[in-house]
Amino acid sequence: MADRPRRHGDHAVKDIPSQPQSREEFEARLRAIGAERYHDRHPFHARLHGGECTPDEVRAWVINRWMYQSRIPMKDAAFMSRVEDPDLRRRWRKRIEDHDGGVSEGGGIRRWLALARAVGLDPDYVASGQGIMPATRFAVEAYLRFVRDMPLLDAVAASLTELFAPKIHAQRIEGLLTHYDFADDTSLAYFRKRLTEAPEDVAFGLDYVLTHADTLEKQNAAAAALVFKTDVLWAQLDALWHGYVEGNIPPGAWRPGEGML
Amino acid sequence: MADRPRRHGDHAVKDIPSQPQSREEFEARLRAIGAERYHDRHPFHARLHGGECTPDEVRAWVINRWMYQSRIPMKDAAFMSRVEDPDLRRRWRKRIEDHDGGVSEGGGIRRWLALARAVGLDPDYVASGQGIMPATRFAVEAYLRFVRDMPLLDAVAASLTELFAPKIHAQRIEGLLTHYDFADDTSLAYFRKRLTEAPEDVAFGLDYVLTHADTLEKQNAAAAALVFKTDVLWAQLDALWHGYVEGNIPPGAWRPGEGML
Repeated sequence: MADRPRRHGDHAVKDIPSQPQSREEFEARLRAIGAERYHDRHPFHARLHGGECTPDEVRAWVINRWMYQSRIPMKDAAFMSRVEDPDLRRRWRKRIEDHDGGVSEGGGIRRWLALARAVGLDPDYVASGQGIMPATRFAVEAYLRFVRDMPLLDAVAASLTELFAPKIHAQRIEGLLTHYDFADDTSLAYFRKRLTEAPEDVAFGLDYVLTHADTLEKQNAAAAALVFKTDVLWAQLDALWHGYVEGNIPPGAWRPGEGML
Repeated sequence: MADRPRRHGDHAVKDIPSQPQSREEFEARLRAIGAERYHDRHPFHARLHGGECTPDEVRAWVINRWMYQSRIPMKDAAFMSRVEDPDLRRRWRKRIEDHDGGVSEGGGIRRWLALARAVGLDPDYVASGQGIMPATRFAVEAYLRFVRDMPLLDAVAASLTELFAPKIHAQRIEGLLTHYDFADDTSLAYFRKRLTEAPEDVAFGLDYVLTHADTLEKQNAAAAALVFKTDVLWAQLDALWHGYVEGNIPPGAWRPGEGML
């Protein structure tokens, strides 16, 4: 472990430690992974928040990001299906409630469909999952499988990208409001809501990881899980850029004009 | 099923039939999927076979394609682990033998490492899997999971991309020999060997699919499985192009100069 990167890469950490880190050191290591690899550093987000995206690029983002949004509650259910401790399940359940909401009012995923409508897409088309790029599916399904199969500690650690989410959501709200006509309180409700939801979730998740990663091996595994999750997010934006900014749409994926209201 | 594409897309088939197709019609439908979506149509292959790839682009291809090569015998073992019929297992086992070979002489995957050496890469580096792009991993792992989880018929149907492989291997051998100094009998042994191996495998697989897909639902599922597999191959080349032709190497992936002999 000490002399070569783990399988999923741990390049964010230049010097993998040779003994367990203190709680503070380990937290700093996790935060450094975000500083180096979180997808707020991807050029697509600069383009989106800076108002340079064409309407079709925004639509492609909304369609493909739906894959991720729609799988979050399934991911959290997969996690809970493996948790024996009722208290941990009780605390984790909030995540599903936040995303799915109630039958009548919906939650985060219905707020995502409000964004779809605002950019001119038929919400039923977006919700059907048609037109999602295969590369997006592969990345998101890898995350779902990770949470289903890996140690619980690694699954919680993978969720810690939420440590870095409030900043990008705040930038996004500001950038979209400034640059795009479709942006208003309704269409951006998803991001506004996450500003308060995510910090609550992640405070619990971070404490869980810092407490349970009590050996060097577990700390390395948790760090690698967080790296893996940043890969999942980054790969989605790479695919989006290649497909819709560069114009290399893969076979079967959404083509501008399809699925419009 | 008849009025909208399946989840994994079946766009290659313009008119999804409303009743089971004859053996001949269904075979033509499968071959049409290849004609429309197999990765011989991807611009990376035209670039590679036409001699336009830089040495580092060829290396990135060799490193990332290793992920696929190395997972083929695992995929076939996953398939066999679910087959109750000893005769089907006996016939399928050849695929593992072809790729893994014996302990001393090796098989297809060792021939791939000979190619790695020929392009100046340290075979141990390539075999370690370090530097593989996350997008490549996600795509190949999606294939492994598909074969592990889906009906056996769909798993066999997904292998039918081999119907289209001999043509691309012949083009590749000719193109690489013409344009690249590293190309010779040793470095290209993998592709030469596949020219005879793949047709034997695929004749059996095609017969299996044509025989067992005896309802419209099974034919549609088998066609969708083949579409899915073409997506797995295409997504790998999209990632390669974005990363190494366009120069947007994702965090943690191989950078030119690393892993050289």
